[in-house]
Amino acid sequence: MNFITPDIPRLHDAALGAQLQQRIDSKTKPLGALGRLEALASQLGLMQRSVNPAFTEPQLVVFAADHGLAARGVSAYPSDVTWQMVENFLAGGAAVSVLARQHGLALTVVDAGVRHDFQPRAQLLQYKVAAGTADSSVGAAMTADQCHQALQAGADVVRGLPGNALLLGEMGIGNTSSAALLMSRLCGEPITACSGRGTGLDDAGMKRKRAVLQEVLSLHAHALEPLDALAAFGGFEIAMMVGATLQAASERRVVVVDGFICGAAVLVASRLSPAVLDYCVFAHRSDESGHALMLQHLQVQPLLDMGLRLGEGSGAALAWPLLVSATLFLREMASFESAGVSTKE
Amino acid sequence: MNFITPDIPRLHDAALGAQLQQRIDSKTKPLGALGRLEALASQLGLMQRSVNPAFTEPQLVVFAADHGLAARGVSAYPSDVTWQMVENFLAGGAAVSVLARQHGLALTVVDAGVRHDFQPRAQLLQYKVAAGTADSSVGAAMTADQCHQALQAGADVVRGLPGNALLLGEMGIGNTSSAALLMSRLCGEPITACSGRGTGLDDAGMKRKRAVLQEVLSLHAHALEPLDALAAFGGFEIAMMVGATLQAASERRVVVVDGFICGAAVLVASRLSPAVLDYCVFAHRSDESGHALMLQHLQVQPLLDMGLRLGEGSGAALAWPLLVSATLFLREMASFESAGVSTKE
Repeated sequence: MNFITPDIPRLHDAALGAQLQQRIDSKTKPLGALGRLEALASQLGLMQRSVNPAFTEPQLVVFAADHGLAARGVSAYPSDVTWQMVENFLAGGAAVSVLARQHGLALTVVDAGVRHDFQPRAQLLQYKVAAGTADSSVGAAMTADQCHQALQAGADVVRGLPGNALLLGEMGIGNTSSAALLMSRLCGEPITACSGRGTGLDDAGMKRKRAVLQEVLSLHAHALEPLDALAAFGGFEIAMMVGATLQAASERRVVVVDGFICGAAVLVASRLSPAVLDYCVFAHRSDESGHALMLQHLQVQPLLDMGLRLGEGSGAALAWPLLVSATLFLREMASFESAGVSTKE
Repeated sequence: MNFITPDIPRLHDAALGAQLQQRIDSKTKPLGALGRLEALASQLGLMQRSVNPAFTEPQLVVFAADHGLAARGVSAYPSDVTWQMVENFLAGGAAVSVLARQHGLALTVVDAGVRHDFQPRAQLLQYKVAAGTADSSVGAAMTADQCHQALQAGADVVRGLPGNALLLGEMGIGNTSSAALLMSRLCGEPITACSGRGTGLDDAGMKRKRAVLQEVLSLHAHALEPLDALAAFGGFEIAMMVGATLQAASERRVVVVDGFICGAAVLVASRLSPAVLDYCVFAHRSDESGHALMLQHLQVQPLLDMGLRLGEGSGAALAWPLLVSATLFLREMASFESAGVSTKE
């Protein structure tokens, strides 16, 4: 199997861009007074090829998988928490479940490679590549074939879901390690600048994690290309998010990117197809050390900055109403003319 | 008439605070992983004296009034825009109308002193003190009596509205000048650090505005006490927001503070009763020059930072779902025990 990166055009249409700007500027407010909401409205309008963008059936998809490297003690929590949290997502008790309900987001969980057999459930999609990646401190986290399979699965997940908005979420004990490794390799930053406490390592844990990650980086010194790095460092959920992001952008769906791990997936996607970033909205700057620097490398500004470090797509869900607001002001606000409001003196 | 500042106790209850923290920490997430949402949940729990805080009938109230100082050319827009925008709020075409609809916020407009006679409408409360303040470059913007009348009206507005949340909004051509003057006087900052472009002054306009404001500051050099400064600089909408904020806090309603002008009202309120700040949530850091410094003086952290500078309560409405999220995660998330999720190794 060979995943083929879909064609993604840059989001550029000078005529429509001008129409959108004119429409934004006609609204009853001082020029530019809605700040970043205005740029967001333009971006969404261009994406939907409309001066009246609107969302239909937004999908929050949580990709879950386990990591062989977790055996090396790089996380504060045991690997079993991955499947336990999947059950929690499906039972409606996790943060992302609560926030998805609040905002009317359809929530789907994808078993990308959890080390557990789940009973079939309506909200659970089965795309398990394997029961967790291999330990990347010993060899590649996944084979090239597995990597392509995961990329394809991510694209297939998106193809099978309705709507024009994809909110990315993830779950996987150990996956801040994969994200840090990918960032370090693809951005050329030292691992210390890319790795953080994850779910809450103490100082000794951090020291151990960084030593292990340095070792993994050295072992895979040859894995320089995006997909080679992805296969070397994992994980299955990150690879599926790469495929999902590329597919969503190719369909002109907006991709709402949660935190550090989703960001790492988008980083990989952007190395395969730089235009993918035009379709992304970065939900927040997380508290995970390394995320701020990652966003700088991506040259993007996130919407929120609330010290979140939970993952699951919780930050994407929290930012979602801001995207809706961007479409609503464009669709529903009166113009100076229609409201009979005087313009500048 | 003499407005009496209501009793507002500090928001402190060590036992309930510990209960709230324990409840937050029992939720299926790493400790502290919901960042500022966690502190917000605690604050709301303390306010409602409950480990399960919930909002009922949130009220967005836009206080509108005109400013005599506007005749001196301190705004980019003519004073007529104040009443025209009130009509726009009521017709549902303004930004705040759209955002209030999006989030199910009841929207009320208070005529605090608009230079216009409105037809009675269900969503419009009539508390007009006068048809605009007097020109503060000639004398006080309002008399002490008018000031007390406005404070009392603000309190009465809140008393008459249901629910346990007040979102502040305002409209008044020229009111960034009043806000800047209040900030300069009460915080001891030079007017250049407190005044910005408002609705969009150009450089020449800014220069004129600052010169006028400096002149007004000098004229009222004696107005050092909070209420003296409020009467000297205006406006009626700001005075009503001071009264509304104090009343809301005394009833343990959360006050969601929009931008620069609402912030100036809360600044005045905090000088009358410092504990009022415990009941406030600052919605955003606006793009109006001076607001960041004002928030520093208040020693508060806003939720959003999106380059907004519209007023109307638009920023408060945009931040509102974050407050709802804070209550929902506390109410609805599963605990490690109830969800059967393993804790830290």
